[in-house]
Amino acid sequence: MAVNLVIPERDAIHRVAGVEIGITSAGIRKADKKDLTVFRLAQGTAVAGVFTKNRFKAAPVTRCETVLANKTPIQALVINTGNANAGTGRPGDEAALRMCQATAKNLGVSADAVLPFSTGVILEPLPIEKIEQAMPNAVTDLAENHWHEAAYSIMTTDTQPKIYSRQVSIEGKTVTITGISKGAGMIRPNMATMLGYLATDAGINQQLLDELVKELADQSFNRITVDGDTSTNDAFIAMATGQSGLTIDRRGSLGFEQLREALLAAATDLACKIVRDAEGATKFITIRVEEAATQDEALKVAYAIAHSPLVKTAFFASDPNLGRILAAIGYAGIDDLDVDQVKLWLGDVLVAQDGGRHPDYQEAQGQAVMQGAEILVRVALGRGSIRETVYTCDFSHEYVSINADYRS
Amino acid sequence: MAVNLVIPERDAIHRVAGVEIGITSAGIRKADKKDLTVFRLAQGTAVAGVFTKNRFKAAPVTRCETVLANKTPIQALVINTGNANAGTGRPGDEAALRMCQATAKNLGVSADAVLPFSTGVILEPLPIEKIEQAMPNAVTDLAENHWHEAAYSIMTTDTQPKIYSRQVSIEGKTVTITGISKGAGMIRPNMATMLGYLATDAGINQQLLDELVKELADQSFNRITVDGDTSTNDAFIAMATGQSGLTIDRRGSLGFEQLREALLAAATDLACKIVRDAEGATKFITIRVEEAATQDEALKVAYAIAHSPLVKTAFFASDPNLGRILAAIGYAGIDDLDVDQVKLWLGDVLVAQDGGRHPDYQEAQGQAVMQGAEILVRVALGRGSIRETVYTCDFSHEYVSINADYRS
Repeated sequence: MAVNLVIPERDAIHRVAGVEIGITSAGIRKADKKDLTVFRLAQGTAVAGVFTKNRFKAAPVTRCETVLANKTPIQALVINTGNANAGTGRPGDEAALRMCQATAKNLGVSADAVLPFSTGVILEPLPIEKIEQAMPNAVTDLAENHWHEAAYSIMTTDTQPKIYSRQVSIEGKTVTITGISKGAGMIRPNMATMLGYLATDAGINQQLLDELVKELADQSFNRITVDGDTSTNDAFIAMATGQSGLTIDRRGSLGFEQLREALLAAATDLACKIVRDAEGATKFITIRVEEAATQDEALKVAYAIAHSPLVKTAFFASDPNLGRILAAIGYAGIDDLDVDQVKLWLGDVLVAQDGGRHPDYQEAQGQAVMQGAEILVRVALGRGSIRETVYTCDFSHEYVSINADYRS
Repeated sequence: MAVNLVIPERDAIHRVAGVEIGITSAGIRKADKKDLTVFRLAQGTAVAGVFTKNRFKAAPVTRCETVLANKTPIQALVINTGNANAGTGRPGDEAALRMCQATAKNLGVSADAVLPFSTGVILEPLPIEKIEQAMPNAVTDLAENHWHEAAYSIMTTDTQPKIYSRQVSIEGKTVTITGISKGAGMIRPNMATMLGYLATDAGINQQLLDELVKELADQSFNRITVDGDTSTNDAFIAMATGQSGLTIDRRGSLGFEQLREALLAAATDLACKIVRDAEGATKFITIRVEEAATQDEALKVAYAIAHSPLVKTAFFASDPNLGRILAAIGYAGIDDLDVDQVKLWLGDVLVAQDGGRHPDYQEAQGQAVMQGAEILVRVALGRGSIRETVYTCDFSHEYVSINADYRS
C-alpha cells in the first residue's frame, strides 16, 4: 500500500560504470529470500558514508566507521538482510569482521577495503557461516545491470523496492546517478532502519565527497520520519567512480553545483520513497515550517507535528483536526512563541491565524485537502526567515498490525 | 478495556468537609451527557494548581492563571466537557470569563473567586449560552456526596471514572483525601489532556500548598505518558479545606510528611488511573531507570522507551522484543552512554547486559513477563545513583480506531 511510489522499469535503470552488483540467497532468516548483496567498485572509486547516532550502534556500523577512518580505498560493500547484527556484543563484532573477510577473500582484495551492512531483527546472533558459504555465489553473480535485483534484495518490511536512476549532462559529459534504499519503520532523523546507496560515474575528490555525503543526508534522509525511532544500523553511502570523465575536485569546480543538485534530487527521492512505503502509510505528508528564527526551532515544530500520534491518526482518518496540529506547535518547545503570530495552511487553505481558526475557513475546505494522498502542511511562525521541510506519513491500523506481528 | 482500574464503590468514597459538588447537563456536545460540574468550597479553603505548558494554552487555563495570581481566595470551580475552549482566540477568553461570571452570580460570590476548566474538542467556539442557562441546575445539585457523579461528569474519551478516596489518621485527627481525574489520550509529561482535582480536609498554608501542588504533579501527573502529546487544557488542582482540625503551616509542622505521602499516593493513583484507561491500552507499563547520573538523563531514557511506537506495539503483541527497547535507550540522547554498562530487566528477568542479550536469557522467560497486564521494565545505566519512574501503556489497534474516529 505504498503511496505513489514509482518503481522504474528495469530497462530504465542506468548502470553506473565501475559498479558491479552480485546477489544470492544465504538463507539467513528465510530459505527462499535473496538476502546477500555484494557491490564491487572499480579502482579509483571514492566512497563516503554517514551512520546512525544510536549509542547501541550495530557491529557492522562500528566496523564501517573504523574502515573509513583508515582511509584505505574501498573496493566492496557487503549487505545482508534478515539479521541486523545489533546488540550482539563481541561475537557480533567478530561476525561483522568475518563478513568483510569472506567478501575480501572471494574478491581478492583486502578485508580493510570492504564495508559491511546488516539489517533485520536486532539482538539475535548473525549466522555468519551461512554468509560465508553463500559468498562465492554472490560474487559469481556480479554484473553492472543488477541494480533492480539489489533494490529487492535489501528489502525487509518494505513492500516495494526503492530505486532512482537518472542521467544528466554536465559540462558536456553524460553523468549517471543511480541509487537504491530500504526502510519502512524505525525511521527518524539522524538516520533510521534505513540503508541508502547512491552511485555516480562522476569523479569526486575524496575529501569533498566526505563533506557532500553529510550535506546530502542532512537534507534528505535526515528529514524523514515515520515513527520517531532511530535504528541501530542506518547508513547512507555515496560512491563516485569517475568513469564518466567528469571530475570534480572542489566546490569551485565547473559542474559542481549542477552535480550537487542532481545528487540531492536522487537522495531526496530515495529518502521520500522510504516514507511512501512506510509501514501502514496511506498518505505522504510534507511539513514545511517557515518564518522561523533558527533552523533548530523550525525543525522542532516540524517534528512535533510529524511525530504526534494524534496528528498522524487524524491524517489517516482524513480528518482536518486543526486543534491537534496547533497543540503540537504549542508543545514543540519554543518557550516564547507568540501564538497570535502563527499561521497554518492545509495545502493552499489558510486554516488558522490569530491564535485560532481563520474566520473564513470552512471545514469542507480542510476535508478536501486531507482526502488527498499527498498533503502539504505549512506553518508560518512569524519569527524570522528560516524554512525547513520534513517528510512523514500517517499512522494507520496497518502500522500496529505490522509492528505487533513483525517477529511472529 | 481499562487495565486493572479499580472504581471504588459509591459508599466507599468519603466526602470532604467543605467541598460540595453539583452536576447537570448543559447539552454542550451531546444532549444526554452530564457535562457541567461546579465545586463550591467553604471559606478558608486553600487552593493551588499547575497547568499545561503548551503555548496554545486554552482560554480557561489562561484565566485560571490570572485568577490564582490575584491571590483572591478561591470559592468555586466550574468544569465543562464536550469543548476545550482552546484555539478560540479572543471570543474564547470572553467565554471563559462568562463561565466564571455565571458561576459567581449563581453562588453569590465574586467572579474572581472562580476557576474555570474545559475539556473536549479543540478549535470550536464554546457554546457559552448553554452553560449559562444550565448553571442554576448545577448549583441546585450541590452536595458533599457527589464525588462519584463528578468523576463521571468530567469524562470525555475515558471509559471509566477515576476516583481515589482514603482516610488517614494524622496527629490524632482523621484526615480525608478524595480526588478525581480524567484523561485518556494526548497524555505526556508536563500535563496532558487531563484534569485532576484533589481535596483534603486538612488545612494547609497557602504558600506551602502552592509549592506542594507542583511537587505532587511532578511525581505523579508529570510522570505519565500515553502518546507524547501535551494538551492545551491540562490542570491539576489541590484543595485544602482545613475542616478536619489538622493544620499544616510549614514543612516542619507535625504531620507534614505523613500528609505529603498520603497526598502523593492519591495523586499517583489518580495519574496512573489515567494510564490504565488510556485510549486502547491493554497493558500498564512501569518504566524504572536506575543508576543515572542526573534526573534529566534518567527521564530521557524512560521517555524514549515510553514514547517509542515500536516498543509500545511490541508490548501490545506480548512480544519480548528487547532490541526495540535497547534501540530506544541508545537514541535517548545520552551522548557518552557506555552500552556495555547498561543492564535491562523485564520484570525480575535480567535480559540484557554487556551490550547484548544475557547469555542465560531464554525467550520464554521474557514472553512470560510480557503476557501479564502489568509489566515492569527496569534499566540500570551504571552512571550514578539517580532513579526515576514513568508510567505508560501499550499501543493497540484500538488507539488508532479511537483517534481516527474521535470527531465523527
